[in-house]
Amino acid sequence: MAARVAAVRPLAVWNRNADRARAFAEAHAGVVVAATPRELAAASDVIIICLPTSTEVEALLEGADGLLAGLTAGALVVDCTSGSPEGARRLAARLAEHGVAYADAPVSGGTNGAEAGTLTVMVGCEPALLPRVEAAVAPFAGRVVRMGPVGAGDAMKAINNALLAVTILAVGEGLAALTKAGVSPRLALEVLNVSSGRSFVSEVLVPERVLTGLWPATFRLALLQKDAGIANALLAEQGVPGPVLALAHQQLGAARAMLGENTDYLEAIRMTEHLAGVEIRG
Amino acid sequence: MAARVAAVRPLAVWNRNADRARAFAEAHAGVVVAATPRELAAASDVIIICLPTSTEVEALLEGADGLLAGLTAGALVVDCTSGSPEGARRLAARLAEHGVAYADAPVSGGTNGAEAGTLTVMVGCEPALLPRVEAAVAPFAGRVVRMGPVGAGDAMKAINNALLAVTILAVGEGLAALTKAGVSPRLALEVLNVSSGRSFVSEVLVPERVLTGLWPATFRLALLQKDAGIANALLAEQGVPGPVLALAHQQLGAARAMLGENTDYLEAIRMTEHLAGVEIRG
Amino acid sequence: MAARVAAVRPLAVWNRNADRARAFAEAHAGVVVAATPRELAAASDVIIICLPTSTEVEALLEGADGLLAGLTAGALVVDCTSGSPEGARRLAARLAEHGVAYADAPVSGGTNGAEAGTLTVMVGCEPALLPRVEAAVAPFAGRVVRMGPVGAGDAMKAINNALLAVTILAVGEGLAALTKAGVSPRLALEVLNVSSGRSFVSEVLVPERVLTGLWPATFRLALLQKDAGIANALLAEQGVPGPVLALAHQQLGAARAMLGENTDYLEAIRMTEHLAGVEIRG
Amino acid sequence: MAARVAAVRPLAVWNRNADRARAFAEAHAGVVVAATPRELAAASDVIIICLPTSTEVEALLEGADGLLAGLTAGALVVDCTSGSPEGARRLAARLAEHGVAYADAPVSGGTNGAEAGTLTVMVGCEPALLPRVEAAVAPFAGRVVRMGPVGAGDAMKAINNALLAVTILAVGEGLAALTKAGVSPRLALEVLNVSSGRSFVSEVLVPERVLTGLWPATFRLALLQKDAGIANALLAEQGVPGPVLALAHQQLGAARAMLGENTDYLEAIRMTEHLAGVEIRG
Repeated sequence: MAARVAAVRPLAVWNRNADRARAFAEAHAGVVVAATPRELAAASDVIIICLPTSTEVEALLEGADGLLAGLTAGALVVDCTSGSPEGARRLAARLAEHGVAYADAPVSGGTNGAEAGTLTVMVGCEPALLPRVEAAVAPFAGRVVRMGPVGAGDAMKAINNALLAVTILAVGEGLAALTKAGVSPRLALEVLNVSSGRSFVSEVLVPERVLTGLWPATFRLALLQKDAGIANALLAEQGVPGPVLALAHQQLGAARAMLGENTDYLEAIRMTEHLAGVEIRG
Repeated sequence: MAARVAAVRPLAVWNRNADRARAFAEAHAGVVVAATPRELAAASDVIIICLPTSTEVEALLEGADGLLAGLTAGALVVDCTSGSPEGARRLAARLAEHGVAYADAPVSGGTNGAEAGTLTVMVGCEPALLPRVEAAVAPFAGRVVRMGPVGAGDAMKAINNALLAVTILAVGEGLAALTKAGVSPRLALEVLNVSSGRSFVSEVLVPERVLTGLWPATFRLALLQKDAGIANALLAEQGVPGPVLALAHQQLGAARAMLGENTDYLEAIRMTEHLAGVEIRG
Repeated sequence: MAARVAAVRPLAVWNRNADRARAFAEAHAGVVVAATPRELAAASDVIIICLPTSTEVEALLEGADGLLAGLTAGALVVDCTSGSPEGARRLAARLAEHGVAYADAPVSGGTNGAEAGTLTVMVGCEPALLPRVEAAVAPFAGRVVRMGPVGAGDAMKAINNALLAVTILAVGEGLAALTKAGVSPRLALEVLNVSSGRSFVSEVLVPERVLTGLWPATFRLALLQKDAGIANALLAEQGVPGPVLALAHQQLGAARAMLGENTDYLEAIRMTEHLAGVEIRG
Repeated sequence: MAARVAAVRPLAVWNRNADRARAFAEAHAGVVVAATPRELAAASDVIIICLPTSTEVEALLEGADGLLAGLTAGALVVDCTSGSPEGARRLAARLAEHGVAYADAPVSGGTNGAEAGTLTVMVGCEPALLPRVEAAVAPFAGRVVRMGPVGAGDAMKAINNALLAVTILAVGEGLAALTKAGVSPRLALEVLNVSSGRSFVSEVLVPERVLTGLWPATFRLALLQKDAGIANALLAEQGVPGPVLALAHQQLGAARAMLGENTDYLEAIRMTEHLAGVEIRG
């Protein structure tokens, strides 16, 4: 995402790991490294943030070297973190005290989409702010959709990821049983993918990453579990009973505990494979 | 399916409701009505069956007017019922006692696929039997896939339908929460459908039938619950823990109890709408 | 609880409903009514609070007429609310700013236990504070147990209530099936209660309140669901996968949505009765 | 159970493991060893059976050396297996063809109860048969309860064990969280056991076997999972949605897959301990 911004605009960057910031600046012309969030904020009228959770973003604001110490009234923070609606609302309120605008703007499309500049950006902000947000994310966005007020972008992203989680778990359960019963999982997916049970998981993820045994590390299971937790908190807040999404959250927690913090999200299927004593390959 | 067969071959038909059989015969040239399953079997060397569950098929075989009383050795029964693998194996064994071959051959593709002759047929049978099964279903099949021995076709269909059930329930939970939180469900689906949480349910069923409030009656919820039960029995038989599929089965049971035996399967979403006090429309 | 305190000590009371406070004062000698929380705080060095959730307690503190406006350094707040550990920690921190001590002290034992002075009090506080808390609750406590630091009392209460919720739901499911299968639920409970599946629910609650059809209103289902939510948040915070407790929380949410805000907690069994089409009576 | 019968009556015994039968006969006066089930049946007018599942009992009947080859009309089979209602009905029907009466009569009370002769026996049989069943089990029974027709004893036992399973899982989840949060699990159980969340699991099993780290091997987890499966089949047959019992069945399946076939049932708690990274001891 930063590379695509750097290609069209002057850019200052800051990273929790200073080496990564320096390496990025060396590789991209016109990029300067800020020593602190404060310095970054002082140098910019638009700040784009992307961190693991809202908690890290909130921490970035405060302190002598924090963003708030450098931000000037009229600036805009575009938060691409897959955060929580509640966290987004707290951030917006805190920034508003300093006259700074805020939009939650989580993205989907993966590393490929970021490099190609085709990410979908789910925005939560005041309607009038949308044009500034669109301009800010234009270098890496294929599509920008305002979902509603602050927090709505995060809500959308959390539900998408919770549905992804449910589908991964269910497809893993179903294919483990078919494979153990002697059905070729490749054949099963071919049939599934021209039938009503198909999903992005069955059409793309499992054929490319599970059948092949590749299991590339693209997105941490721990983060998907966090997103499923955000989705469940949204359902609780809205008074929507959601047993299926609640169970998916718990199962990801069990998979995380079994497989470790650095496991890729798709490896939730590996928990079922391990418990069932079968590998879905072919 | 019968109409497409009648278009290319002489055909005898029997229906539990004699009026339906007569009306069909009057509307299609060259079709004769059999008075009993026995008469049908005596007139045919290939019998195609499609009933709600394996139990109805098993009942069709026995008795003075049953299929077995009319079947001759060398005949073939192609069972398009979405049955249970266990039922299919019992049927195959019973028919084998009379020298009759059996294939389970459930289909996917809906009423549209049947009319267009593009159904996917999931076959469980001995490898050598496949050409005869392919010839039998050719008039209505777009694709014929042998999944494995007798029962494998039913296993595949049950898993497909269980995944369909999970996805329906999860998408309903997620969209109910977003809708209550003020996000347009149409916009939410647009974003979901270019993201990793997408599925046949989110791409086709919910936009066409839920957002519009049409809820057409296409397939009974009670039958989808039956299929989810077959899938769960398969997992139990194979020793695969499947909490997500088990919960989906239970939730369909609750929806069936709340909404009645004649509810369409997609109306499982209505249970969530009702409990959440929201309608997913737009 | 207040009646037992009034019997042994001078007491000032405040209630969100002023009429209830006045009626209580008229019925109990030596009780005065405070006009506001501030006035109550100014008149007392020990304040005992019992409200539906931590949120109501937090609201009581603030504002011109709030508790903080009247509290003096050295006072003690004993919070008998079934609150959240997180809320308790926030309350303790806020009160500490004013030199006021805080203990979470939820109770179990029901209305009977309160009247008899035999409640169990689950305390979360600094060890040194325990004697003051014990003295404060002595009039209505049969047993006072310090579970750990601030929040530990609420954690204990939430887990107790989540286990109560799970047991209610499971016993309801099991007895509904036995009853539909023609087994007398009274006989089933007799056998269960000399076997390994027995619980407080099967030994006391169901015989007294469900078999009899009495369903007395003693504790709102909405509050039990809140407690189950607190328990689930504790599990999430501690990194403990808890699918059974998570599902119980969701099922209570569904029961609440079906049966309404004023339903008694035990009526969660009525949801199962309704869905199963059976009544567990006898 | 056999020892108590042998103390009051002449007894012939047969075991799948002949050495165990011989050793038993040597240790108990007046006991003879039958070489086959047929021989046992020929020597007795009352046969008491206790095997892991109904499947083993059904297998015992058939073949040249099977029970049916030796049974005479008017005999009685008392089946103390924790079987399935469906299996019990099949057994009763098969035996009735030979004029032999059948009662399902599973027991509760554990090894201690068997030795003390205080087992509870849950009987499913025709009313008129009860006196003969009572006489047969009198040596080891403290209480004999007729639950209903054939299958009702098994239904009762399965529901008891399913409730046991749910409670074990839920108590494990709750105590793991409290322990990780710093609360002493011994203290937590003391409070729980004077509160509404208490159960046989919290009052007896966890204090004696988990807190102590003893984990004695008393009853295999695989058998408890089988019983939970029987309970779920009963709910499905009766049209009772039972998400909590269904989830318990799945969780036991996962624990069995993680911990192995010879794990004790209570070790289901060890799965949660392992996933949560905590031990409930103290």
